[in-house]
Amino acid sequence: MVVAREYPGLFITLEGGDGVGKTTQSEILRDRIEAAGRRTLTTLEPGGTELGLSIRELLLHGQHVSPRAEALLYAADRAHHIATVVRPALAAGTVVIQDRYLDSSIAYQGAGRDLQPDEIRDLSLWATNSLLPDITILLDAPTAVAAARVAFEKGAPDRLEAEKDDFHDRVRAKYRELAAAEPERWVVIDATRPIDVVATQIAEYVLPRVNQRPSAPE
Amino acid sequence: MVVAREYPGLFITLEGGDGVGKTTQSEILRDRIEAAGRRTLTTLEPGGTELGLSIRELLLHGQHVSPRAEALLYAADRAHHIATVVRPALAAGTVVIQDRYLDSSIAYQGAGRDLQPDEIRDLSLWATNSLLPDITILLDAPTAVAAARVAFEKGAPDRLEAEKDDFHDRVRAKYRELAAAEPERWVVIDATRPIDVVATQIAEYVLPRVNQRPSAPE
Repeated sequence: MVVAREYPGLFITLEGGDGVGKTTQSEILRDRIEAAGRRTLTTLEPGGTELGLSIRELLLHGQHVSPRAEALLYAADRAHHIATVVRPALAAGTVVIQDRYLDSSIAYQGAGRDLQPDEIRDLSLWATNSLLPDITILLDAPTAVAAARVAFEKGAPDRLEAEKDDFHDRVRAKYRELAAAEPERWVVIDATRPIDVVATQIAEYVLPRVNQRPSAPE
Repeated sequence: MVVAREYPGLFITLEGGDGVGKTTQSEILRDRIEAAGRRTLTTLEPGGTELGLSIRELLLHGQHVSPRAEALLYAADRAHHIATVVRPALAAGTVVIQDRYLDSSIAYQGAGRDLQPDEIRDLSLWATNSLLPDITILLDAPTAVAAARVAFEKGAPDRLEAEKDDFHDRVRAKYRELAAAEPERWVVIDATRPIDVVATQIAEYVLPRVNQRPSAPE
């Protein structure tokens, strides 16, 4: 059931570890939703605004940042991105497809480091004035499969990607736990299958929900 | 009464509007505490670390930042500064004298803008893992007096200083309210009096409390 919302758009997030195919799948999904006649916006965190790019630079390639400061910087990027990019698009009836959102923070910072998942969630909800996605797609794959893809596609892994395998295992477990706790928001897709199979599964889940939303004025 | 703390140092903050003399008074206080044989550290927010300087640059001279993002960036600076500069100094027995801390955020962001003072306070306490000052000195002066000093001392006011007088009146009122609510932490000093009179009043309040703390190993 799709409940009434304060905006005519639809907010879709893609989640999962590095290498599971979030970027590829968000592009295919965007094309299919546009083919169905709806306006879309693809965006990402961190880095969806000019401010976010500066913050991303600080976090990925700068000096060591203390854990609470890191969480607050991610939350600042999110606050600005949601207020200035995502909420205006949703208000205009756009289908927003976002690569990573608050569940990434909960899974990575909460499961992997020394902060509690609940406090990370509270921080993100404060940052965004409580904006939760309408649909969250978990692209789920064993750590070894995802790591092989990252090694194949990229040269130098960044700091987060360079963490150990057991960290990625904990992130994956946390994602699955989050999905199980809120089944009305999450859909879990087996990301080890071929790209077109995954894309079709996503589209079959998402498109009927897009069509239930009123079209925006063009 | 000075209660037992987890650190041998003493954490002193100076608060008040721009132009009330916080920098001058913190330097005089530092000299007097060092003359009494105690190691000191003078520091400030925002900008007490390399990360903080980058954040300060974003906040004061960059693009418009949404209100929650601004609050989170200040909190990130604070988290990093407290974790990497202030807590280690307090643990080593140092008397830390800091120009602005969480009460600045409450007074400026909470009283002046569209966020609630209580949520700003909660955010700062989360950022710092609940570090409150031992002593907070409010340098209190009417807005017109402080504004005249700022105009005299500086060329171009920055963005915060360029806000209207009624904003500064609300900030001052909020500071006085905070001081009244926690009299065991705050001391309110009339900052319209001559510099040496203000300095003596501060020293008479602070020095006995410094002497109650165990000296650090040199």
